Amino acid sequence: MDSWVIRTTTRDVDDESIMRRGNIYQLANGYMGYRGTLDEYGTAQCVGITLAGLYDRVGSAWREPVNAPNGGYTALSVDGVDLTTLDEANAVAHEQSVNMAEAVFERRTRFVVGGHTIVLHTSRFLSADERHLGVVRVSITSDADTTLQVCTGIDGRIWDINGPHLPQLTAETRDGALLVHGCTQENQKRVAVVECVEAPFTDVKIETEAPSALRVVSLPMAAGETVTFTKYFAVVTENDASADDVIGHALAVVEQAHRDGYDACRERHVAAWTQKWMRSDVVIEGDDEAQRALRYSIFQLLMAAPWPGSGLSIPARALSGQVYKGAVFWDTEMFMFPFFLHTHPEAATELLRYRVRTLDGARRKARTEGPGYRGAFYAWESQETGDDACSYFNVGDPTTGRDLRTHFRDKQVHISGDVAIAIWAHFRHTGDDSLLLEGGAEVILECARFYDSYAYFKRDKNRFEILDVIGPDEYHERVNNNAFTSQVARETILIALATVEHLSETHPAALEALLAKLDIAGELQGLAELARNLFVPEPHPETGVIEQFEGYFKLDETSIDALKERRVHPNEYLGAGQGLAVPTQIIKQADVVMMLNLFKDRYDDRVRRANWEFYEPRTEHGSSLSACAYAMVAAEFGNLDYAYRYFLKTAKIDLDGAYKVYAGTVFIGGSHPAANGGAWMTAVFGFGGVRTDGEGLHIRPRLYREWQRLAFSLCYRGDRFAVEITPTLVSITADSDNARFHEVDIAGQVRTCPPGTTVTVPLPEPQPL
Amino acid sequence: MDSWVIRTTTRDVDDESIMRRGNIYQLANGYMGYRGTLDEYGTAQCVGITLAGLYDRVGSAWREPVNAPNGGYTALSVDGVDLTTLDEANAVAHEQSVNMAEAVFERRTRFVVGGHTIVLHTSRFLSADERHLGVVRVSITSDADTTLQVCTGIDGRIWDINGPHLPQLTAETRDGALLVHGCTQENQKRVAVVECVEAPFTDVKIETEAPSALRVVSLPMAAGETVTFTKYFAVVTENDASADDVIGHALAVVEQAHRDGYDACRERHVAAWTQKWMRSDVVIEGDDEAQRALRYSIFQLLMAAPWPGSGLSIPARALSGQVYKGAVFWDTEMFMFPFFLHTHPEAATELLRYRVRTLDGARRKARTEGPGYRGAFYAWESQETGDDACSYFNVGDPTTGRDLRTHFRDKQVHISGDVAIAIWAHFRHTGDDSLLLEGGAEVILECARFYDSYAYFKRDKNRFEILDVIGPDEYHERVNNNAFTSQVARETILIALATVEHLSETHPAALEALLAKLDIAGELQGLAELARNLFVPEPHPETGVIEQFEGYFKLDETSIDALKERRVHPNEYLGAGQGLAVPTQIIKQADVVMMLNLFKDRYDDRVRRANWEFYEPRTEHGSSLSACAYAMVAAEFGNLDYAYRYFLKTAKIDLDGAYKVYAGTVFIGGSHPAANGGAWMTAVFGFGGVRTDGEGLHIRPRLYREWQRLAFSLCYRGDRFAVEITPTLVSITADSDNARFHEVDIAGQVRTCPPGTTVTVPLPEPQPL
Repeated sequence: MDSWVIRTTTRDVDDESIMRRGNIYQLANGYMGYRGTLDEYGTAQCVGITLAGLYDRVGSAWREPVNAPNGGYTALSVDGVDLTTLDEANAVAHEQSVNMAEAVFERRTRFVVGGHTIVLHTSRFLSADERHLGVVRVSITSDADTTLQVCTGIDGRIWDINGPHLPQLTAETRDGALLVHGCTQENQKRVAVVECVEAPFTDVKIETEAPSALRVVSLPMAAGETVTFTKYFAVVTENDASADDVIGHALAVVEQAHRDGYDACRERHVAAWTQKWMRSDVVIEGDDEAQRALRYSIFQLLMAAPWPGSGLSIPARALSGQVYKGAVFWDTEMFMFPFFLHTHPEAATELLRYRVRTLDGARRKARTEGPGYRGAFYAWESQETGDDACSYFNVGDPTTGRDLRTHFRDKQVHISGDVAIAIWAHFRHTGDDSLLLEGGAEVILECARFYDSYAYFKRDKNRFEILDVIGPDEYHERVNNNAFTSQVARETILIALATVEHLSETHPAALEALLAKLDIAGELQGLAELARNLFVPEPHPETGVIEQFEGYFKLDETSIDALKERRVHPNEYLGAGQGLAVPTQIIKQADVVMMLNLFKDRYDDRVRRANWEFYEPRTEHGSSLSACAYAMVAAEFGNLDYAYRYFLKTAKIDLDGAYKVYAGTVFIGGSHPAANGGAWMTAVFGFGGVRTDGEGLHIRPRLYREWQRLAFSLCYRGDRFAVEITPTLVSITADSDNARFHEVDIAGQVRTCPPGTTVTVPLPEPQPL
Repeated sequence: MDSWVIRTTTRDVDDESIMRRGNIYQLANGYMGYRGTLDEYGTAQCVGITLAGLYDRVGSAWREPVNAPNGGYTALSVDGVDLTTLDEANAVAHEQSVNMAEAVFERRTRFVVGGHTIVLHTSRFLSADERHLGVVRVSITSDADTTLQVCTGIDGRIWDINGPHLPQLTAETRDGALLVHGCTQENQKRVAVVECVEAPFTDVKIETEAPSALRVVSLPMAAGETVTFTKYFAVVTENDASADDVIGHALAVVEQAHRDGYDACRERHVAAWTQKWMRSDVVIEGDDEAQRALRYSIFQLLMAAPWPGSGLSIPARALSGQVYKGAVFWDTEMFMFPFFLHTHPEAATELLRYRVRTLDGARRKARTEGPGYRGAFYAWESQETGDDACSYFNVGDPTTGRDLRTHFRDKQVHISGDVAIAIWAHFRHTGDDSLLLEGGAEVILECARFYDSYAYFKRDKNRFEILDVIGPDEYHERVNNNAFTSQVARETILIALATVEHLSETHPAALEALLAKLDIAGELQGLAELARNLFVPEPHPETGVIEQFEGYFKLDETSIDALKERRVHPNEYLGAGQGLAVPTQIIKQADVVMMLNLFKDRYDDRVRRANWEFYEPRTEHGSSLSACAYAMVAAEFGNLDYAYRYFLKTAKIDLDGAYKVYAGTVFIGGSHPAANGGAWMTAVFGFGGVRTDGEGLHIRPRLYREWQRLAFSLCYRGDRFAVEITPTLVSITADSDNARFHEVDIAGQVRTCPPGTTVTVPLPEPQPL
């Protein structure tokens, strides 16, 4: 098993399973995602080229990202038989793969038509060098003399969940290239797709009947002959160019690619990927399954990373489709951001710039969402403006067909703190305060101000409380004193005060301007008081268990199985106002355990273990965010079997494909980049024992017993390191380009690590089996 | 139409409709209620003799009042035909009536069996003189020579909703009487029913096969002969006597009644009722429909009134059955109590003694219901101990068959204030502070303390808020700053402070002891601060409309019809977490309007009208408590057409019978004493314009245009008055036994009214038509 390749090989070919695995085989380059379906597929098989950061709304349906016309389209026909679906086209063998090292998708299919065999082999990539470019190389082989019909070009029949978003496409030719363009319904944003081929074709008939622009080619083939051609397609939107330049820009990209040729395009693409992997690969020796799943996880994150300067973030289902509205959730800051911060800090910065850019949306939400909320209340589901795409009725009830009132939007207030915590972590980790000065400090202060406006004071207990929230466990809505949320709120205020202190020492004029702009100087003392007196539930003095929220311990104790047996419909939602889990201690996902992970320094192993063991049997893991929290906390208190089980669950979530693809009639299949980020964190922070809290690098390895070696790269304070961990030693190599000497604490031993050197520390004793 | 008699006469006899109207024809005497079904009926027709203040619980079903064996049972059989159901027994005519003046139920039924006619005529009453006693006189006439079988005695086959509560009844004879006795399951409380007859029977066969004790008599009759006999039955429980005395006590009651004879028993009963009516009848001349409905309403209240010293209150469905768990709700203090306070203050005192007696239950609820609640949190559904009988899942969902989580129990916190307000009104109205000293002051202080423990301080708004409540409108759960609730809370604290002030002036030693007992002296300053700074939503400066709770105005505007069209099941509940009304402005019942009624002095007519007209189209009146609030407030701001419409709706609720009798399989038919109290309040406070706020009697009549005369009695400060209002004058007559001269403000003219005199004030101009 090559841990770099994801592959499906089958003689039992069916379109449905290929369609369903479209997210596993997806490609993306941060600008667009291309579901891993086949060249000849159309809307019925959910082909999707999803654009980052371009959204549209049709009628009263929810807003979602726009899918582009499919410039990668190619379909064959032979002897009057269309080879457009495998089921019907006598495909006798099919193999598809993604090579993660190069981010290339390949498919090879053997069709038997009229007694002879046609093999279709294509490989495609979305350029990591030129964000607008996609390239497909098509090879066709026949074992007999025959004439194939090839239809290739831009398929404008777009598959949408809530479309059509590009309702009136124009199809034309321009300078020998095919062109399909149109504009979105809500904001009239122009989108253009241009495609050209480098091909040995003669006898080409161009069909530009909207919405598609196609070449239909009659291709005589000799027995044993292979015909190969290359498609270059470009997607440009009005997010990237002025309305007048969209088409011209797309044409230029395609023309340049055509001029450069396939090999050069591919070479630059692969070189960019090599760079990415050099900075972020994690090697696990001794455990192929874990190695492959972790590499797959990292691959997903790398593909989703926004381009510098784009001002974009990563949606909860990355670029794998229109699922989850293409919206950015807390997933990004809490689960994906740490990977980028430690490997590609410029991408991490970009993720946070998105929050800076959408601060006004968060301010609007605060103003309109509640009575007298101030500051920034970030969107639970954020699109391009930062206004909340989350509806008040966000879950369908399969029994009544009605949408259930949920409070994700209005009560999941930890989102603002999640953002502030990430911005502060960025500063602490990079040592670079330029993001703070570019709006990060403003975000932090406005988030703190939001909690100030949200908190209440309980006089007889002489404390502030955060009331009426949803914590990470969404099965219990509108709870008081949720430990996670309250601690996030307190942390946000502490960060705000620390930000003011930092700026007062380093950039007093900028601070003064900021305080004046926000008119917040008079509130700082109140914030300090709030931080001092804000109630956060503490571990029980005897058991060590932290009550998830006020009254949680009084809820019914039951088992997840018993709960599920009471469902009247298998897809019944267990939360919202009347869900089966609501009166019970069954929780959707890590909540207290997530808090223990986020605030590692504040709890000891006794508390970690006590809460893990208390909450674990009560957790349904109904969210893909849950497993990694359990994995990381278990590693922290030293139960590596617990940790490994949840690590694999996190890392394999997409590969196992054990998730729903349809909710009712709505396609919800998509990737899980937060779980992917969780897998990386578990490997590096959990088993690797890395902590970079702004006070230096710490490595306290806890290698899983099956692993012979764990190796990864880290970026810290702008410098780079390679770390290797074996059962007997830890070595860390500082990049020769590093700017500084660093002190590294390895298993309790503090060493200095100058640029270009390796420090090796033998571990005091073998890791316990 | 005799406005004193409720009568049904029909040739189209059917048991179902008689069963359904059992609550309309019920009798009660404060000790027990007897559904107005027929002598020969059994469990299938929902015969019920429901006992006040005796509850039982079987298994996990809800606790409910105990029904006694039916000592009023008599059934006939002729020529082998059982005359036990009208449907099957050839009943050709049937009449039944309740004479409200005397509280006597009569039925007369003509059966045709084998070609000849039997007439069964019975009359029954539950003695208003001897609470344990029921009397039934039975007359049977035959138009032909025949032999009837008479079966009369105690039917022990008890109809229960959640029974059996008396599972192992013993049936026997004792000194010629029949006796059925047993004890409840939960607390082993003994219940005994004794019955004897005064009859010309010979040839009596006694059958004492548990659970019934019966006489079977073969009764030869001559053509045209009428045979009459009288049944005396007594019910005694361990609430009234020691376990050993229950049977003896019941035997003694029956023996005494037997000795006294029918005429004497009935005479004493009727005399007691004459007294009751003298003190509480309301005469409306010119509107027979209103007169009859109002008299019916008063009758219901009089029948339900607890006996002095019983320590009982009035359940929400009075004594009309086991419906609503026989529980006491806020209905009593807010809707029934004013009638008693103004007509039978000793009964009003008894209602409040029940709250004093159950204070410890309210304290237990506070301790266990919430985090750090202190003081007294009265039960939403209170039974004999004051612990809450309301479940957390109090409404069934007809679609899923599941019980819905409702927050009636834990969030309808206005209940404590409702109690405190009634206790204070009692003192202000009677001028007698003995109830305060007997525990009323303690209740008030503990209720204020509860709100102190419930309130939160909002720092940036510099105010306290009452969060997370349900106001009277139960379709919107868990709202913040509900105007009604917050004002009730503030009023409670003001009352507590006024109570302390009053006692400090009049009973300093008692106050000191009370403050010490409660250890509350140190909290008084905090209470004063809370009262000063507790936020209560104010009328909008332009529109005058008060927002029912924070965010109400932002809810969807829709119509009640449009809402109901969206139901998937006709009995679907519109509230709880996911009800159709929740995201809309549709409310279940008067909420802001109820507040305007409760705090009349604090708002002007402009605000009253603005809120009435705003909320009225948004009110579903899904509670029987709603209409009277709309009636009273409309009268207050002078729209008597509005007022009259809602007055009739309130007064006729039971007579019209437009309410549900079954919810699923659960019998919920019952009377509506709160609406009855609302009808009286609308007549006397609304149209009569009476206000007795502790600062004297005020009368500002607003006579409805159809009414020629409105006359009623009032009790104030222990003295009695008769009031007459016509379109041209108001006269008030002070009882000659009155102890004091009273100043009376009639339509703005203040007059002194010495004992035994009548003051007449001509009205300045005719009432507007």
